[in-house]
Amino acid sequence: MSNHTAVLLDDGLNTSIAELDLSAITGRVDASLLSFLSEKARDGELGQFAELLRECVRAGGKRIRPLLCVLGWQAAGGEGDAGLVYRWAASLELFHLFALIHDDIMDDSATRRGRPTVHRMMAARHPYPANGPAADGFGRNSAILIGDLALVWAEEMLHAGQQPAAARRLVDEMRAEVMAGQYLDLAATGRVGCPVADVLRIAQLKTAKYTVERPLQIGAALGAADGGLLRHCSAFAMPLGEAFQMRDDLLGVFGDPLRSGKPVLDDLREGKPTIVLALADQRATPGQRATLRDLVGRPDLDQDGAARVRQILTVLQVPHAVEELISARYRQALHALDQAPFAAAAAAALRTIAASIVSRSA
Amino acid sequence: MSNHTAVLLDDGLNTSIAELDLSAITGRVDASLLSFLSEKARDGELGQFAELLRECVRAGGKRIRPLLCVLGWQAAGGEGDAGLVYRWAASLELFHLFALIHDDIMDDSATRRGRPTVHRMMAARHPYPANGPAADGFGRNSAILIGDLALVWAEEMLHAGQQPAAARRLVDEMRAEVMAGQYLDLAATGRVGCPVADVLRIAQLKTAKYTVERPLQIGAALGAADGGLLRHCSAFAMPLGEAFQMRDDLLGVFGDPLRSGKPVLDDLREGKPTIVLALADQRATPGQRATLRDLVGRPDLDQDGAARVRQILTVLQVPHAVEELISARYRQALHALDQAPFAAAAAAALRTIAASIVSRSA
Repeated sequence: MSNHTAVLLDDGLNTSIAELDLSAITGRVDASLLSFLSEKARDGELGQFAELLRECVRAGGKRIRPLLCVLGWQAAGGEGDAGLVYRWAASLELFHLFALIHDDIMDDSATRRGRPTVHRMMAARHPYPANGPAADGFGRNSAILIGDLALVWAEEMLHAGQQPAAARRLVDEMRAEVMAGQYLDLAATGRVGCPVADVLRIAQLKTAKYTVERPLQIGAALGAADGGLLRHCSAFAMPLGEAFQMRDDLLGVFGDPLRSGKPVLDDLREGKPTIVLALADQRATPGQRATLRDLVGRPDLDQDGAARVRQILTVLQVPHAVEELISARYRQALHALDQAPFAAAAAAALRTIAASIVSRSA
Repeated sequence: MSNHTAVLLDDGLNTSIAELDLSAITGRVDASLLSFLSEKARDGELGQFAELLRECVRAGGKRIRPLLCVLGWQAAGGEGDAGLVYRWAASLELFHLFALIHDDIMDDSATRRGRPTVHRMMAARHPYPANGPAADGFGRNSAILIGDLALVWAEEMLHAGQQPAAARRLVDEMRAEVMAGQYLDLAATGRVGCPVADVLRIAQLKTAKYTVERPLQIGAALGAADGGLLRHCSAFAMPLGEAFQMRDDLLGVFGDPLRSGKPVLDDLREGKPTIVLALADQRATPGQRATLRDLVGRPDLDQDGAARVRQILTVLQVPHAVEELISARYRQALHALDQAPFAAAAAAALRTIAASIVSRSA
């Protein structure tokens, strides 16, 4: 999972599209989430963590998952208990906070949404007991618990009303899928030669399903969508989600750090299994491959080294090839949207979101 | 959370008590849990982790939480869907596996139930990608994900049938409470001078509520217990659970490592906030206090140092004082049990479990 997720939507999106006001939707999602956390902030011992999670929510993020959840519900007709839909949408965001907190521990990331990550923040709050664990260990261990708590609370948010069986099943599947994607990502990190098929499978699990398909389907299922409509959601969401991850991978090497807020060296230093590196490894001469395998994954890779990697990627026309893969998936998603019997306003909003996802520069 | 939990019940308990066969109950709990995990083992990408969790289940543990859950249901009359009760009981055990996996990461424990801990096992399976993260980091990060997965699956186990609202609420409360207890424990670790009141609060959250009160109440709520019966559960469970933790604390310093399977230096080396150290700090002369604060919490504390700590504790009659606290709580629990309108067979079983908890030597 990357910082890019946080800056998915252009500000221009936060205006009325057709009849759906997307900023009103995300505003209502946030109200639901912040009101839940305000309740928890009154809890003596856990109150401080509810406050901390509120700060994380307020710090940013574009709410792509809850937005798609609400749009899935609208696409299916928008009938029934809107309060329930917004609560489930908000629960997706709280689950995502859990995932980010644990992800940041695993990557030992220093910042998220322009602020210190939770484990770094907790390390700074270290109580310094005599002979106690070092601040870093305390920060990491606290953040494991705070992530766990966010997951437990995300679950609790689903219990205030009905739990429609189909939507419930989709939530459970989504959670297991993102664990699988994260694990595969972890196991492949450092392998420059990770095959394209493996990279695509990771992208499907940790991005296409987790960020696009499941949120849309969960919303549709809350709107009592039948199996046919859920398949239409999938046909639109999967190629779009893959394109989302590919754009992320390109920005991770060629993006503008000033726009993305993410140091452009991270993906290369960690040796993340990205489509960019997979295609490069496929196309490289033995000499180029040796250089790539030498440089990528070095924690001390500097700007000169990164420039050499970028030069090889450019010579191999990797950026162009990835752009083509993105375009093909974008067309596929739009075609699926044309075929889908979604409510018109929701379809229009989804079209705009799709364009924003594939063309973003941050 | 400690290894002692795993060896709570004497083998003698695994025979028929009154009309309730406790080993039949735990056998049925295990069957429910292993059957759930067998289904998951067929999943391509997560199957290996379902297998790993099955191995953890099979490696040991006495199923105190699921046992109390089923007994709570029996205590309330044992009416209704037994399959549902056993599934919820099994879910408590899977949740506990999640808690142990994350706890072992936080303490960097090497073994659990006589086997390598999950993060150590995963470190040994490290894929060694070129330039990839070191084996220890990979083991820890994988174990964070595997713990998360156990929690997600423990939740999923609750979705196969009805989710009675009162029981559901108790599960949610229990999960948040154990996070709070774990966090307070973490923040107090290394503080020899942790006040008795703080130590008791931690014991209430992370042991009395998590291990005894909530499991019993959840079972009772699945048996449609009213508020009065739930209060009777609490009146029995809370003093018993505190006694449980105090026995654990005593065994952590004075126990026989051959019987407990736990190195008797760990609690002292980590400087865990235990009743033993809290009372010692309260009773010590300034000179004794200085020695205790110097020795406790040193990761390199050796047997000689531990012997000096034990000598001071003995001079201060701390073991005797803790035994008295345990006895008082045991009497309180039995008195509450006498007052409770529980079904007779369940009450008899709870009486035996209570005796086993307070008198165990491992």
